[in-house]
Amino acid sequence: MKTSVIRKVIFHSAHRLHNPKWSDEENKKVFGLCNNANYHGHNYELHFKVTGAIEESTGYVIDLKVLNEILDKEIVERFDHKNLNLDVKEFANLNPTAENIAKIIYELMRMKIDKNLEIKVTLYETPKNYVIYPD
Amino acid sequence: MKTSVIRKVIFHSAHRLHNPKWSDEENKKVFGLCNNANYHGHNYELHFKVTGAIEESTGYVIDLKVLNEILDKEIVERFDHKNLNLDVKEFANLNPTAENIAKIIYELMRMKIDKNLEIKVTLYETPKNYVIYPD
Amino acid sequence: MKTSVIRKVIFHSAHRLHNPKWSDEENKKVFGLCNNANYHGHNYELHFKVTGAIEESTGYVIDLKVLNEILDKEIVERFDHKNLNLDVKEFANLNPTAENIAKIIYELMRMKIDKNLEIKVTLYETPKNYVIYPD
Amino acid sequence: MKTSVIRKVIFHSAHRLHNPKWSDEENKKVFGLCNNANYHGHNYELHFKVTGAIEESTGYVIDLKVLNEILDKEIVERFDHKNLNLDVKEFANLNPTAENIAKIIYELMRMKIDKNLEIKVTLYETPKNYVIYPD
Amino acid sequence: MKTSVIRKVIFHSAHRLHNPKWSDEENKKVFGLCNNANYHGHNYELHFKVTGAIEESTGYVIDLKVLNEILDKEIVERFDHKNLNLDVKEFANLNPTAENIAKIIYELMRMKIDKNLEIKVTLYETPKNYVIYPD
Amino acid sequence: MKTSVIRKVIFHSAHRLHNPKWSDEENKKVFGLCNNANYHGHNYELHFKVTGAIEESTGYVIDLKVLNEILDKEIVERFDHKNLNLDVKEFANLNPTAENIAKIIYELMRMKIDKNLEIKVTLYETPKNYVIYPD
Repeated sequence: MKTSVIRKVIFHSAHRLHNPKWSDEENKKVFGLCNNANYHGHNYELHFKVTGAIEESTGYVIDLKVLNEILDKEIVERFDHKNLNLDVKEFANLNPTAENIAKIIYELMRMKIDKNLEIKVTLYETPKNYVIYPD
Repeated sequence: MKTSVIRKVIFHSAHRLHNPKWSDEENKKVFGLCNNANYHGHNYELHFKVTGAIEESTGYVIDLKVLNEILDKEIVERFDHKNLNLDVKEFANLNPTAENIAKIIYELMRMKIDKNLEIKVTLYETPKNYVIYPD
Repeated sequence: MKTSVIRKVIFHSAHRLHNPKWSDEENKKVFGLCNNANYHGHNYELHFKVTGAIEESTGYVIDLKVLNEILDKEIVERFDHKNLNLDVKEFANLNPTAENIAKIIYELMRMKIDKNLEIKVTLYETPKNYVIYPD
Repeated sequence: MKTSVIRKVIFHSAHRLHNPKWSDEENKKVFGLCNNANYHGHNYELHFKVTGAIEESTGYVIDLKVLNEILDKEIVERFDHKNLNLDVKEFANLNPTAENIAKIIYELMRMKIDKNLEIKVTLYETPKNYVIYPD
Repeated sequence: MKTSVIRKVIFHSAHRLHNPKWSDEENKKVFGLCNNANYHGHNYELHFKVTGAIEESTGYVIDLKVLNEILDKEIVERFDHKNLNLDVKEFANLNPTAENIAKIIYELMRMKIDKNLEIKVTLYETPKNYVIYPD
Repeated sequence: MKTSVIRKVIFHSAHRLHNPKWSDEENKKVFGLCNNANYHGHNYELHFKVTGAIEESTGYVIDLKVLNEILDKEIVERFDHKNLNLDVKEFANLNPTAENIAKIIYELMRMKIDKNLEIKVTLYETPKNYVIYPD
């Protein structure tokens, strides 16, 4: 039977929700406070899940030290203490909603994790709002 | 790929577990302390999940402000600071176990959320006990 | 130097805030939803603190097994799965606000804990509201 | 529709990750600090899920008092305040990684829970690392 | 004996740590990632404590509905979904460290809360770092 | 006014409560399951508090990067993934109760933190039991 291992990491980022094709009024109406011109921010809490078989010699699905190094390099270094809109090229033309951040994390990690392993992203923007991709 | 958005809301309610077709002894035996005649109560924590596609213009599966207004009107106003057995008509003939509360929340919300979106209810009765409907 | 030991216990109770000397309108105005006639409820989380010297032979300020038994008998059995207004005699003539519940817990426990030890009550009514007595 | 009920229980255990077929260097390289010869330990938090239909007369999928008794007898008594490697026979020849502990919990509980009910184990080794079996 | 009531509120802000009297190198050395030119952000969790006597007619130290309205108007509206450096005049010439944010919250609230009541600010910048003012 | 900064760190250790001057029966009676001969373990969560004035040029009481390095070197490296009784010389002749661990942490850190700053240790042995030294 398949088994999953989940590792939690945190990053602290500024962002702003904005659609450049829309007027300021339209943006304000749809995104409300999240459209604030000078940004706001969050402690993003990422639960990254890897699903596969338990390897017999180690008792591991994946070595968490290895997974953690990949998460640090691919996600934390890229997003932590950054402005997602200005500092992260993946959001140059993509609105950094929690849904889109989760999707980008999935795509960045999918390139680094063995194709025999399934992956899933759960991302808390606040303790009250979170997203799952894919689900 | 499908994406989920989860919103957490809280309500504080009194309730009593009781089957009116049973004797007092039978109720006491099955429901124990939860059968206390004068009710007891909980801080119910609801995680309401909506699953669908990310809309391109907004980057949202669903606008959380809109979802929150529906949750407030349909669930929080109905259940918060209420006695589930006496004040909420949905439990007039239904035992307000966590399972049944989750089912009622699902049914109330199913009528208000776009049919293209799937929904799921996770309901914490206490930090140690929770239910998922459907699962 | 003095050392403190804290033990967390939970109880699940119904209550209603009400001043019998006031009119219904006055009660509604002051206590709002908390005045609901049929009660509402909470998962109360009690952090009970005992402060004193570390005893050399055990390395304990107080044996937590002993403290836990006292908390179970004096607090949990009295309050858990009860209606504070109707089932607990200490609130027959005292409004069961978080402040007053904390004070009653202090008084009940003060009679059972060695006078050489200081005690303090922190009581969470919800994860967003809590009280400390004395402070 | 199927409904799930989850009960959380805790156990506090010592363990060591080690493959007796490997050299000390190999073990150190793969398991790092977790290979410490004198063991280390964790507060394991188990979320045990039972999935089935809601029974009409009770409103329960399973009586949590009954589930809790089984978890206490089969899991907590066996693992709590124990050394998993030395005191628990299920790990005499099995490396007690979180993955393998979850699998053993599943197998022990599968024998005790009605076959009409599905079960799933989520096990937190730390607040940052957890596993799900099966998933 | 004095009693305390604590109310938790959240705000989501962008900020940057920077001393304008220092060179870029000096700022980078002292503030590290927190000096990122385009800001980063946090979910700030404020525990606001009010200490005084329990009023007999209500059983309250302070009416939490009233306290909550003051916190909303003075703190949440001012800080939530804002850039502390650019949007909040209190930080025009003050580095928005957690310590200084807590101090500003204390000063803003001290003007609004009855002088017979003591107040204290606990502010979580992340779940791992928090400050208390005064302490 | 004085301000406090708190940093949370975690360590995962095995331990056993035992008084070598007592018989096995006496140890069993006083320490119960915690006396298990082969040890058990915990995820210890340390909240380390430093209290002093806010330095004007930085807005800091203490640089958390510096504090974190000291905590890593003095506490985490010494205690994490260790057996407190066998691997940590401070407990060679001292029972590793939560109270005594907090006291040792205080003493180790007191030597490394500027004497103008006060320090205090809060140590969670489990989410239900914690200690404060000094208090």
